[in-house]
Amino acid sequence: MSESANWDMLVVGGTVLTMEPGSEPIKSGAVAVADGRIAAVGPAEELLELSPSGDVLNAGNSIILPGLVNTHSHLAMTLLRGIADDIPLKEWLEQHIWPVESKYMNRETVRLGTELATAEQLLAGVTTTADMYFFGDEVSAVLAEAGMRGVVAESLIDIPTPRCATPEEMLEKQRKLLETYSSHPLITPSVAAHSPYSVSAANLVKEAELAEEYEVSMQIHLAETTWEVEKLLGEKGVSPVAYLADLGVLSERTVAAHCVHVSSEDIELLAEFEAGVSHNPVSNLKLASGVSPVPAMVAAGVKVGLGTDGAASNNTLDLLRDMQLAALLHKGIVGDPTVLPARTMLEMVTINGARVLGLENIGTLTEGREADLICVAVDGPHTAPMYDPFSHLVFAARSSDVRHVMIRGQVVVRNHELQTMDHERIEAQARELSEIVRSS
Amino acid sequence: MSESANWDMLVVGGTVLTMEPGSEPIKSGAVAVADGRIAAVGPAEELLELSPSGDVLNAGNSIILPGLVNTHSHLAMTLLRGIADDIPLKEWLEQHIWPVESKYMNRETVRLGTELATAEQLLAGVTTTADMYFFGDEVSAVLAEAGMRGVVAESLIDIPTPRCATPEEMLEKQRKLLETYSSHPLITPSVAAHSPYSVSAANLVKEAELAEEYEVSMQIHLAETTWEVEKLLGEKGVSPVAYLADLGVLSERTVAAHCVHVSSEDIELLAEFEAGVSHNPVSNLKLASGVSPVPAMVAAGVKVGLGTDGAASNNTLDLLRDMQLAALLHKGIVGDPTVLPARTMLEMVTINGARVLGLENIGTLTEGREADLICVAVDGPHTAPMYDPFSHLVFAARSSDVRHVMIRGQVVVRNHELQTMDHERIEAQARELSEIVRSS
Repeated sequence: MSESANWDMLVVGGTVLTMEPGSEPIKSGAVAVADGRIAAVGPAEELLELSPSGDVLNAGNSIILPGLVNTHSHLAMTLLRGIADDIPLKEWLEQHIWPVESKYMNRETVRLGTELATAEQLLAGVTTTADMYFFGDEVSAVLAEAGMRGVVAESLIDIPTPRCATPEEMLEKQRKLLETYSSHPLITPSVAAHSPYSVSAANLVKEAELAEEYEVSMQIHLAETTWEVEKLLGEKGVSPVAYLADLGVLSERTVAAHCVHVSSEDIELLAEFEAGVSHNPVSNLKLASGVSPVPAMVAAGVKVGLGTDGAASNNTLDLLRDMQLAALLHKGIVGDPTVLPARTMLEMVTINGARVLGLENIGTLTEGREADLICVAVDGPHTAPMYDPFSHLVFAARSSDVRHVMIRGQVVVRNHELQTMDHERIEAQARELSEIVRSS
Repeated sequence: MSESANWDMLVVGGTVLTMEPGSEPIKSGAVAVADGRIAAVGPAEELLELSPSGDVLNAGNSIILPGLVNTHSHLAMTLLRGIADDIPLKEWLEQHIWPVESKYMNRETVRLGTELATAEQLLAGVTTTADMYFFGDEVSAVLAEAGMRGVVAESLIDIPTPRCATPEEMLEKQRKLLETYSSHPLITPSVAAHSPYSVSAANLVKEAELAEEYEVSMQIHLAETTWEVEKLLGEKGVSPVAYLADLGVLSERTVAAHCVHVSSEDIELLAEFEAGVSHNPVSNLKLASGVSPVPAMVAAGVKVGLGTDGAASNNTLDLLRDMQLAALLHKGIVGDPTVLPARTMLEMVTINGARVLGLENIGTLTEGREADLICVAVDGPHTAPMYDPFSHLVFAARSSDVRHVMIRGQVVVRNHELQTMDHERIEAQARELSEIVRSS
């Protein structure tokens, strides 16, 4: 613990879960913050004595833990929330999502959709989000303005997008984003290739080289559907995971979203290459893609984080809710109530989510790390009584219980109120746009 | 529509879903209430003109729909919320749940646990709850005081309970409850037998006869685990469902909780006897019991409602959340995104839940029915924009969005605040008790 008491703020009022491996909950704990970083973690009584005059953020009866990390999303797609549900994937994409995207997604609407996603995620305790979409410069600007941490990529795909006509242009845009945000305190640039079936081998390799050159992560959809696996097996003779490995594209920089249909050989490859996996349980169920073998991946030592995917296939960005669903789902699927216990699930949305995205400076409440934390109130009827804070967060808490949210030392949500965004203006604009889309 | 405008209250401010079969959403709709019943449903503009001077409950930007119906629970077990998670069923029951129940569950703690469950459910939009536990008179008293609707049973099991030493005594207590609540406006008494494996054939038959005599429903756990199915097959030579049918116990009065392991023959029996099924997806996943074939049951015409089960195996009584999980789960399990579409899921927690419990006077917003309704706000970032109110409730809304709750014309929750209970006192007492349990 630091001996200095020149702290900017002391967060008190609950049980602290640092999420450091092996750590015990600190009852009546506190977290001291200075210069945007964690300065000390310990019993509230001791820390209050060390800093009798500093600012105090009272969490009330809360659990204080690292901010949640969403490892896969398409933020602007909040504008398409619920535009088409309960229909098959092909019809959903071809008749609803793609036509609306091509007609309405531009720099302005990407800004609006990203604002909406950011407001939603901050209020729900998500402090870091991955994004894989278009207009990454606009996305980065929105996140930075709101004080939210992001790992942002321009997407590469071998067909024209609302942003670019050719893959070459996309690669150029990617490079520009990597340069612009090379040393931003909140935005970590990244690259993204849509998938092994929609990007050529040559472009996949270029993408991996770009990630290597700039030392950033590479986001990609991988092994999401049986259709994809069969296509790759048919055309390349190998599974999607093996295909990336053969190309030299799979690495510790990879953020592989979905991995629903992976064999035990695929899982070994993911572990061997230290690739990160983003598990997206809600999207995979809603589109009937299947259930990812997460317990097997965790057992094999694969880094697994959790992702919401875009709101068009979820239909929210409620990572706490998705964690709860994942925790329940895999017990039932495997037929064993002990798989993926509560603490493992919480690691998935904190320390392991951060590792998947290549962020070593967040994910735990550790002295010297960035001060990204949330206070989850446990004073409602649905959270009384509390026997175990880990299982309580996973099985009983709701994202609406998130009382305060701090990112890099800045309180961005206080008493459930956004401090950095005008969410009513954003919601009103989103509703206006939906009326136009609906009537078109 | 009624021509009289002597209404007690007009609920306005959103889209009304009556949940009547085939009904369309009423945009800018309203619901008029008189003498605890629905007096009229229609466009707000028209109804406001008819009743210019009456009380108005403004739902803001909400969806107004029938109150939710929880078809299976053990209310007092909220006190055991999170007492033991992530462990196998046998260990969970024998080393945690049963010892604590036998030591701590008595009339006073059942009251406290039921109060906690009632506060939690009212705030989450559940207006009718089934209960299957002990001290049904105490449970009924708590629900009636809080203004909540309940279908309450004393449980029968062939071993001593915290309430009774013998099955004969249990049957006597059941009869007394049936007499006491024979014509209560909120409490519908019921009977309950624990399960086909824990109650003798003779007692199952007595229970069914009692249900017939008093014309009430009979709650029972049925086909929850493979262990139960194998036991019945081994001892009786038939499945649990067929066993009840053979005994003459299965009927339209049956409320069969779980039905996880049911064959196509079992499903035919359930349909033929018009038995009701309570699907409990969260409990079934958490205890790794499996996934109930709900799409097949619905296709076969079985009445299916949704239940939370007790908070010890859930760990909340958040029916809206459980509906969301069920909607997602079955798409993924069946491999078809069109199964159990949003409207079907909403019917499960409203009109069909009411039918499962034998309540024909609730479940839809229909003139003459009891005025049980909820207003679910759709003005947060996570619910903007809204394209379809049915899918919005199922895939995007949260129980914390429940703004107002009315039961039998009484506003029991207003602006997220309980009007009929002191939930802080209840939570404090639940916490105190948990400290005693923890240290024992």
